[in-house]
Amino acid sequence: MTNPNLDSLRSAFDGRLLLDAQDMEPFLTDWRRKWTGRALAVAQPSTAQDVASVLGWCDAHDVPMVPQGGNTGLSGGATPDGSGRALVLSLSRLNRIRGVDPLGNTLLAEAGATLQQVQDVARQAGRLFPLSLAAQGTCTIGGNLATNAGGVQVLRYGNARELCLGLEVATPQGELWNGLRSLRKDNTGYDLRDLYIGSEGTLGVITAATLKLFPLPAAQVVAFVAVPTPGAAIGLLELAQSRLGASLTAFELMSDLCITLVEKHVAAARRPLETPSAWYVLLELSDSHDEARAVSALEALLESALERELATDAALSASVAQFKALWAMREDVSESQGAEGKTIKHDISLPISRVPEFIERSGHAIERNFPGVRLVAFGHLGDGNLHYNVSPPPGSPGDDALAALESPINRLVNDLVDEFEGSISAETGLGVLSWDGAARSKRAV
Amino acid sequence: MTNPNLDSLRSAFDGRLLLDAQDMEPFLTDWRRKWTGRALAVAQPSTAQDVASVLGWCDAHDVPMVPQGGNTGLSGGATPDGSGRALVLSLSRLNRIRGVDPLGNTLLAEAGATLQQVQDVARQAGRLFPLSLAAQGTCTIGGNLATNAGGVQVLRYGNARELCLGLEVATPQGELWNGLRSLRKDNTGYDLRDLYIGSEGTLGVITAATLKLFPLPAAQVVAFVAVPTPGAAIGLLELAQSRLGASLTAFELMSDLCITLVEKHVAAARRPLETPSAWYVLLELSDSHDEARAVSALEALLESALERELATDAALSASVAQFKALWAMREDVSESQGAEGKTIKHDISLPISRVPEFIERSGHAIERNFPGVRLVAFGHLGDGNLHYNVSPPPGSPGDDALAALESPINRLVNDLVDEFEGSISAETGLGVLSWDGAARSKRAV
Repeated sequence: MTNPNLDSLRSAFDGRLLLDAQDMEPFLTDWRRKWTGRALAVAQPSTAQDVASVLGWCDAHDVPMVPQGGNTGLSGGATPDGSGRALVLSLSRLNRIRGVDPLGNTLLAEAGATLQQVQDVARQAGRLFPLSLAAQGTCTIGGNLATNAGGVQVLRYGNARELCLGLEVATPQGELWNGLRSLRKDNTGYDLRDLYIGSEGTLGVITAATLKLFPLPAAQVVAFVAVPTPGAAIGLLELAQSRLGASLTAFELMSDLCITLVEKHVAAARRPLETPSAWYVLLELSDSHDEARAVSALEALLESALERELATDAALSASVAQFKALWAMREDVSESQGAEGKTIKHDISLPISRVPEFIERSGHAIERNFPGVRLVAFGHLGDGNLHYNVSPPPGSPGDDALAALESPINRLVNDLVDEFEGSISAETGLGVLSWDGAARSKRAV
Repeated sequence: MTNPNLDSLRSAFDGRLLLDAQDMEPFLTDWRRKWTGRALAVAQPSTAQDVASVLGWCDAHDVPMVPQGGNTGLSGGATPDGSGRALVLSLSRLNRIRGVDPLGNTLLAEAGATLQQVQDVARQAGRLFPLSLAAQGTCTIGGNLATNAGGVQVLRYGNARELCLGLEVATPQGELWNGLRSLRKDNTGYDLRDLYIGSEGTLGVITAATLKLFPLPAAQVVAFVAVPTPGAAIGLLELAQSRLGASLTAFELMSDLCITLVEKHVAAARRPLETPSAWYVLLELSDSHDEARAVSALEALLESALERELATDAALSASVAQFKALWAMREDVSESQGAEGKTIKHDISLPISRVPEFIERSGHAIERNFPGVRLVAFGHLGDGNLHYNVSPPPGSPGDDALAALESPINRLVNDLVDEFEGSISAETGLGVLSWDGAARSKRAV
């Protein structure tokens, strides 16, 4: 097998072509440093048409292609394999915001624009783009759509899928498909937009998207609530949904160990509540009117929750600094767990009403079968989405010890997710991480 | 060509098989009486598995199949052609609600359950299923999903597509595909659910669906507002979205002629405002707290709108009876126009910010080219969705005169929709009504 002539690739598109090993290096390893591959070259086309041209060239020369946005994925979907035969297609130069329509509440962004860039341009136009992730400074809107990203505001605004009105896509044959209409309703023909969204680049490469914008909330308040059990957290969720309606914009669950780890590894972090509790909920209220109305609605809710013994204590944010500090307790969990050593991650989704039963049964099973490992369970309870992570026993065993644990723990968790009719990838996508599990899960349906 | 042996069909499934001309008759003409066809037979299978068996039989015997729900479609998609070769597959006996999960906010309904039935079961569980259409007493949830139905609450809750978490589908080969998971998030594999939704039965027949439920609002208030122009209505929409956020649950536009026709044909109808106005808006606010808070927010909004000259007058509902009476002014438009004689209907979608320009340009063009015809323009302005209907000049010309007008008026409207990058089917689906237009529109993309 000889390598194709890269001169023909260089002349096939406008943009950068990286061939030097040192230039290519940042594109060949994923963010978690779990996978490293090799590549023929890295192409960075400048326009959507040039993306299509690169795809056309790959098709003509039978070259595998791996699209890459901000390279922040957790599932290895943007890293080439070890063969060195693939071309990495980086969307990073395709990063313009093509337009904003505040009256129509839409924004047209190219795939390589970062999520933060999209949020900022929307905000400058007096609008909210609600998708919100830890990686937002680096991850790209194309990658967000290709993996149907989730995040902390899904409860109110939906996944990336629900925030997209139209797409422009480069097809594997090297054509550009224009589905960029900015319509709220269009019932003509098959829904190709949603087929591309979440397909992780396997059906085409998203080059641009029309996104939905929302009014900016007038006020936001957050409460950090001690809850005795996951079952009580579900009771609190139901109460909050009925009392707050759509102004409930986030509902996150954390085990006590999550808070302990954040306190240990983040210098500025302080436990918001003195009362010890096995579980905590962080809930956010966004109000279209003003802060006073938001606080009074939240206080009334918490009072009812305490009366019904769904909660044992709560702290409310009374300033922007407190709002950020309470959110940080949730946002810093993942990194704090990372500081304890390598982690076995599960991004699972369950029917919301069955989450408590799942947590109880999987917790017992893991304790019994893998004594000493530490469960770091947290996530978007309002969406039934848990980041059900496992750290090895304290004292950091080597990578080999972790690897020996990973496969049986994955199997235990995935089996139970199957039994609960859940999903083994709620928001991070399949990538290469979940191939085996996915094949099994799709067979089981 | 000989007819296939219907005895083999009768033994292929459990359920009813109608062969008698009189029994079949209600299934062969559409609701608007615009199309009448013939059929080999009408099959009414009793279970999802029996639907699959009917499809398998059709596949084996090369028999075309036309699925039918409540037969309330406006585009002729559920009526067989005149050949008499097709089997009509009626889902009407497949109408159980398989379960409700109030904690998880989901409901599992079979395709033939009526929309009203789904709403009622949800309400009995203390939940809202927000899809709401004029035909809800008769139309079925399977048809709603197959055509991605819209309605008056799309602004807040989305189309049928956004209200569905999972599907069960009988494939053209006679298999049953189970995609009924009730998960809020699932990023494993391609999104087949959304491919089936809106495909009007051409890829498979939906047999059951897991639907999203919402908390019931604590209070609802509606305002009927006189606005000087469609541009002012868009300004009011922007103001309402920013002030009311997600509690703005409907925003409907009507021309003065709509109100005149309702007053003329509906005995109980009274003009809500004395001030004459070329345009009216009906807006609904749903509050999760109480009626007082809803009224105060709506009053504050209307005061600002009057100050900014976005509105000239307004009436608020102060009781359930008034709430219903104001809604009736909007809901009775279509039937009142029907009472004036046959109608040329357009269900179009436009970028919201361009609606005023479209109304102005299309109005002038129609006036110039077809003097005397009457424009009855109304619709879901919050979604950019207009029911842009045309009545022939008063004095009811015969069907031939109407037919002579229909084709050039359709062309004029569709051309302009194309120019505005809109869609010629916002919510009623393509059926057979819009085949020519759709072929053109898909070429144009």
